[in-house]
Amino acid sequence: MPDSTMNFPPPPSILSSGCEVDILVHNALVLTLEPGTAPIPDGFVAVKGSRIAAVGSAATPDLLPSARRLLDARGDLVLPGLVNTHTHAAMAWFRGLADDLPLQKWLHDFIFPLESGWLDGDKVYQGTLLAAAELIRGGITTVADGYFYEAEARRAFAEAGLRAVAAQGVLDFPIPGVPDPRDNLRAARHFMDSGGDSAPDLITSTLFCHSPYTCGPETLKQAKALTRQRGLPWFIHLAETRQEVEELRRKTGLAPGAYLESLGLLDELTVAVHGVWLPPEDLDLLARRGVKVSHCPESNLKLAAGAAPIPELLAKGVTVGLGTDGAASNNDLDLFGEMSLAARLHKVWRQDPALLPAAQTVALATREGARVLGLEKVTGTLTPGKAADLTVLDLNQPHLTPLFDPYSHLVYAARAVDVRHVMVAGRWLLFDKQFTTLNWPEIAGRIRTGSRNLGRT
Amino acid sequence: MPDSTMNFPPPPSILSSGCEVDILVHNALVLTLEPGTAPIPDGFVAVKGSRIAAVGSAATPDLLPSARRLLDARGDLVLPGLVNTHTHAAMAWFRGLADDLPLQKWLHDFIFPLESGWLDGDKVYQGTLLAAAELIRGGITTVADGYFYEAEARRAFAEAGLRAVAAQGVLDFPIPGVPDPRDNLRAARHFMDSGGDSAPDLITSTLFCHSPYTCGPETLKQAKALTRQRGLPWFIHLAETRQEVEELRRKTGLAPGAYLESLGLLDELTVAVHGVWLPPEDLDLLARRGVKVSHCPESNLKLAAGAAPIPELLAKGVTVGLGTDGAASNNDLDLFGEMSLAARLHKVWRQDPALLPAAQTVALATREGARVLGLEKVTGTLTPGKAADLTVLDLNQPHLTPLFDPYSHLVYAARAVDVRHVMVAGRWLLFDKQFTTLNWPEIAGRIRTGSRNLGRT
Repeated sequence: MPDSTMNFPPPPSILSSGCEVDILVHNALVLTLEPGTAPIPDGFVAVKGSRIAAVGSAATPDLLPSARRLLDARGDLVLPGLVNTHTHAAMAWFRGLADDLPLQKWLHDFIFPLESGWLDGDKVYQGTLLAAAELIRGGITTVADGYFYEAEARRAFAEAGLRAVAAQGVLDFPIPGVPDPRDNLRAARHFMDSGGDSAPDLITSTLFCHSPYTCGPETLKQAKALTRQRGLPWFIHLAETRQEVEELRRKTGLAPGAYLESLGLLDELTVAVHGVWLPPEDLDLLARRGVKVSHCPESNLKLAAGAAPIPELLAKGVTVGLGTDGAASNNDLDLFGEMSLAARLHKVWRQDPALLPAAQTVALATREGARVLGLEKVTGTLTPGKAADLTVLDLNQPHLTPLFDPYSHLVYAARAVDVRHVMVAGRWLLFDKQFTTLNWPEIAGRIRTGSRNLGRT
Repeated sequence: MPDSTMNFPPPPSILSSGCEVDILVHNALVLTLEPGTAPIPDGFVAVKGSRIAAVGSAATPDLLPSARRLLDARGDLVLPGLVNTHTHAAMAWFRGLADDLPLQKWLHDFIFPLESGWLDGDKVYQGTLLAAAELIRGGITTVADGYFYEAEARRAFAEAGLRAVAAQGVLDFPIPGVPDPRDNLRAARHFMDSGGDSAPDLITSTLFCHSPYTCGPETLKQAKALTRQRGLPWFIHLAETRQEVEELRRKTGLAPGAYLESLGLLDELTVAVHGVWLPPEDLDLLARRGVKVSHCPESNLKLAAGAAPIPELLAKGVTVGLGTDGAASNNDLDLFGEMSLAARLHKVWRQDPALLPAAQTVALATREGARVLGLEKVTGTLTPGKAADLTVLDLNQPHLTPLFDPYSHLVYAARAVDVRHVMVAGRWLLFDKQFTTLNWPEIAGRIRTGSRNLGRT
């Protein structure tokens, strides 16, 4: 593995000194997100190669580990990189193209025609680079993506240096890149088995079945079998709208969870996305099977889908992470916005201001998100031995002053753009708000040119 | 009036040329927020003294008005400065001090003890400067504030250069600065009549009665009379929680609106803040009397108060603006967040994704907010003759790319920190993201020192 820590521009605050570890971020307020640990004032994170070597606090500078490079992060907050458990990255092309519409009109008049008539592999690559820029800018270090031409998305994530769970979309309809649905599982298998060349340490290649209403039972079973035999997470949109749940019940007599259970699809590697209209009996079932849930509140509200039963799922011990969904229905890829909304939405929905307190909400966006993706041994907390995936926020802002509780600020006041530095696997992807792996002017230019004929006419 | 346009640092993009107008912002995408007008590509806004002299689009540069100073705003979006119709600015001191608590515990264990034991005039001044920095940073040019020691708040707003409706709090309890409630109306009158010295063009001095449950009927009537005889808006928290509405009904047999009507307090100069639990019969009454409503969704959700009947009020023709409420219950003063939440909340609450479309939501935060405050002839749209209150956003960001609909971006993707320049009455308060009237390091230092002993123990 090349020494990727050399890729960031050396600012004045990074000085050479000893060389026990590669990078030492020090003088910061550090949140490890390890359960039961308090914020560490005057804390440090030491990075060696791609991993965290040490985390702690030193009373005096001479007690700090010696390091090849120092980053003085006084006035900054260091936390694990955020984990976005659900997006369709390349849909960033369609951001703001059509809003404030009923779901079916939005899909059938705008999104589906564009996906079938306009999208190609290169568009997915370009759109995913755009999304990657936004994800990095917003402190996200791990992203779970599900879309078409996913090999092109995977290539973009690898170029950006992000940690990604890239999932090829599977439907029993013609989709971009797979015009004949009889080829969908063959294409899916090929996608999974061809990922070895692109950043294998950072990228997981798996499958995303769009939904029970777009995939027949045999497709669902075979796709799940492909991911299960490889020990990979398997994604499915579940119970996003009331209509789809009613229709499924009419067709099968079963609730969404019970339907997947009848096909043998529920286990600890299944990620149910949305889950807005899961009935109470499904919640117990998901909990019993260890199914994970991705909660995307901004998208759920914008499309008027509803409020997912997240407090109930959490009370039953279900692992829940946060997701942004695609920028076509959000319209951004900002987990700070999702934290703010998740913490507020469930309070008002249940009329209980103590639901989803700030520290728990930050955990959903980090540690719990990593568990949703099966990456809990790799990322999600600042723990020695785990990958050095971290986000550094600038606290010296009016809206973050004064500071009593960093969790409160992260959820109720901070914004994506407060992020100053972002590191994945020991490599800075953003340093002093500048991209180190992406050429933003080039990406923006291509998107602007390419989107010129896309708008409403 | 001094030539306040000289106060901003001259960057390379501002060049001297002719001198018909003082400042010409050109090459921008301009939203005037005048009803029925489309976004203006390659648009300009010409400023002479404190007012807008012209708004339009020029096919070639030689058709632009000649100007003493040019600001080339290519790639930027220019819109009217945002109008925050409700805050308690100095409560920025208490940002993140206590969250995720039931309202009564939050008030009685944290907020009330601090306000009665710790707050003084200087603290209100310092806290309002902190809030002013955040307001300016977030593109807000007009703010309606209601708090204690409001003369100190007024002084801070004047120093910051903001347009403000400063309202002295009135309660039938001892309050900071007015220990004997028998003095409350005398103090209120004194506040209103002593405002002449601080930026009279920009600041309106009026009254804010805390609520029907903290002010008796005589106090409400006398305070309203004081503001009515001066033609000033009068503010009151109304129907924020279900409990207060039930209690009022037990005591008086009346709904909140009907109760104020019985006291003769409803007219076009009354601003009802929150209105979450207004019953249907009150909505008609408010509409009939021309009462204005300030909607503060982030605070309403965080305190689990509920979702105000905003679509219903709008359908009845009631003028509604957006407010942030104080940073103790929000926890920021960011109207972009309020736009995003207002547009989403009502969609999901009524299960209708077409409610509060983006363009209407932007109008609530600008033109309609100005109407709520009785300032519709002064600000809220980019209209020749009105004050030059404007906000310039940097569109060259991943989360704002591509661009199909600027209203969509403002509501669903933009953030306060995308604001690049802010002008009030022809004077830049923020230029290239730098404050021109406030000394941020000094403000931050004082707040950090002063808040050291405030946190949870």
